[in-house]
Amino acid sequence: MPNWLLPENIADVLPSEARKIEELRRLIIDNFHLYGYELVMPPMLEYLESLLAGAGHDMDLRTFKLIDQLSGRTLGVRADMTTQVARIDAHLLNRASITRLCYCGSVLQTRPNGLHATREPLQIGAEVYGHGGLEADAEIQELALASLALAGFTQVRIDLCHVGVLRAIIASDVQAQKDENALYTFLRAKDVPALQEMTLTYGADTRRALLALPGLYGDVTVIARAREILPKLPGIDTALDELIALAGLAGETSVTIDLADLGGYQYESGVMFAIYVPGLPNAVARGGRYDHVGEAFGRARPATGFSMDLRELARLLPDAEPKLAIRAPWGREPALRTKIGALRKAGEIVIQSLSGHENDQDEFECDRVLVLEDGNWIIKNLG
Amino acid sequence: MPNWLLPENIADVLPSEARKIEELRRLIIDNFHLYGYELVMPPMLEYLESLLAGAGHDMDLRTFKLIDQLSGRTLGVRADMTTQVARIDAHLLNRASITRLCYCGSVLQTRPNGLHATREPLQIGAEVYGHGGLEADAEIQELALASLALAGFTQVRIDLCHVGVLRAIIASDVQAQKDENALYTFLRAKDVPALQEMTLTYGADTRRALLALPGLYGDVTVIARAREILPKLPGIDTALDELIALAGLAGETSVTIDLADLGGYQYESGVMFAIYVPGLPNAVARGGRYDHVGEAFGRARPATGFSMDLRELARLLPDAEPKLAIRAPWGREPALRTKIGALRKAGEIVIQSLSGHENDQDEFECDRVLVLEDGNWIIKNLG
Repeated sequence: MPNWLLPENIADVLPSEARKIEELRRLIIDNFHLYGYELVMPPMLEYLESLLAGAGHDMDLRTFKLIDQLSGRTLGVRADMTTQVARIDAHLLNRASITRLCYCGSVLQTRPNGLHATREPLQIGAEVYGHGGLEADAEIQELALASLALAGFTQVRIDLCHVGVLRAIIASDVQAQKDENALYTFLRAKDVPALQEMTLTYGADTRRALLALPGLYGDVTVIARAREILPKLPGIDTALDELIALAGLAGETSVTIDLADLGGYQYESGVMFAIYVPGLPNAVARGGRYDHVGEAFGRARPATGFSMDLRELARLLPDAEPKLAIRAPWGREPALRTKIGALRKAGEIVIQSLSGHENDQDEFECDRVLVLEDGNWIIKNLG
Repeated sequence: MPNWLLPENIADVLPSEARKIEELRRLIIDNFHLYGYELVMPPMLEYLESLLAGAGHDMDLRTFKLIDQLSGRTLGVRADMTTQVARIDAHLLNRASITRLCYCGSVLQTRPNGLHATREPLQIGAEVYGHGGLEADAEIQELALASLALAGFTQVRIDLCHVGVLRAIIASDVQAQKDENALYTFLRAKDVPALQEMTLTYGADTRRALLALPGLYGDVTVIARAREILPKLPGIDTALDELIALAGLAGETSVTIDLADLGGYQYESGVMFAIYVPGLPNAVARGGRYDHVGEAFGRARPATGFSMDLRELARLLPDAEPKLAIRAPWGREPALRTKIGALRKAGEIVIQSLSGHENDQDEFECDRVLVLEDGNWIIKNLG
């Protein structure tokens, strides 16, 4: 097997792609900054228990494990940064007030999310801690949409759902409580026959509600239908109110309501959203409320946030045009060095030719050249 | 053991520090860009054999190993990016001409380099492939010094050394060739007694040269002394010529020559440098020539480059002043939203207060507030 072969679903990012990612990264982080989000950088490695605190079984399976030579304990390589950022809020910053944090970094996953998905997403995201109200969810939704707009995606669709609906239905029925995990699984798979069989012995209201969920999918009129079909439970009312409020804040963006969408991880506790762009079946951004994740670090705080994979996002964008550059000869004469220094200071890319070799690159195109005429270094157009 | 405890020599980067790192990262990458270096992003994970191709035993010990569930093979988490970038040049880009590449990313190491060193450096660096001449080394040295100047380090010292000196001495003596590894070790440790004992049976010239090396340390006059003391071997002449040329290109920077410094990894093949800043005993940047690293990927190319740890560099810098921001009330009224949008577009940080909570942050200081007066949203100075 040749040395240059990479593991499956692991890839190098070459210059033209890397530049797109870098530019997107800066645009999005700068926008977080304008909203008052502070940047944090959690480590790639943690003790496994910390990394998986509050996370589900799925996250455990997706996490690479290592032995720490210094402590003899098991470490995990982060497969997601949400728990890490919650740990920073709960333990390290430990503020009484609202905390807005953002992050961008590689995560590694033992298995890809799909056939062609990378096992090394570049996760970027933002989180608000300390506020349980819908305002924080609205700000996060706005930031997620703004991030995609900065990347050039204007034709997006946002899917809204709310774990509160299913939670309220299950909480109202002792039998359903026992089957909670199975119900989650069947609803995520929209497996109606399995749901029908499982709910045969449930109360009539619960059964009707659970079987109705997979069909409660569509534009905002779904919420009115849900109010008719679903049982009158306070948890359901609150959830539907929140969904209608957030749908109203999406502006021009097309909104879909999906009351049976329970995708993502198991720490969500309220409203959740997924954003889709044309040409990609999977959501490019996911967000939602997960108020309980801080508990594992000794401090439950309301929390809401979103994240997306910059690599995937950049892959969808058209290639950047090569940057125009000036070719300069090699030389250490002060006049040449001063000229090159001044050009670079003015933002020009200057590539010095190394003797005996041509230079060649993807990212840059030399359209000008620096030449010595009558003792002065001047720029001439090429070709 | 509490969940928030991190492994030894692993740490979170909190907002004020993260912002310094982010700013430094951009300054340095942008400067690479102005010199015509293309950005690449190699993966965190590779098959172990690829990652360690051409690297020494030391790198093997510093590399975390994992089992890949998809292939059943052993993966390594990168402990250094130099080999990865060489692989990209040799195999993926595979150009005949000169290639300039740069990179920035986390690496993980099983053991820290020192008591307080991190096991997760944020490695940033630049490499030139395809040019064996000293011009490429000069450009790399210039870039390394320019990167530190951008970070605000003007009082730096550059140590120059050259593996060609020791290589030439060893190549001239059959007995020394057998003891090569031990000689390396003793010279790195400047262990003169051990050198004296080992070289007892060597030729007189070789012995004198090896014992002289640890003393050949100081300003550029060391090179003249070396020409007198060391045997007249072509390899030594070339090495000393290269050292004097590079020392001449360091400008205002203070230069030290150290002919016994063989630090760093074992892939270097020519001139090497280490840059020191006040207040830190270890080098902040290391660079040099390592022409053979591409061989493992089927293509030996001349190569020279440097790298440094952005986390360590940022730690040495004074804390950034908090960014000034505008506090705005929460609200979805179009006039308020338009005003906030316009302010952010103009580069102002606007932090919306969430009802019932004060906001509090390290990175930002709200010195102004947005208030509604006579139906208009206006900015007022705070306290």
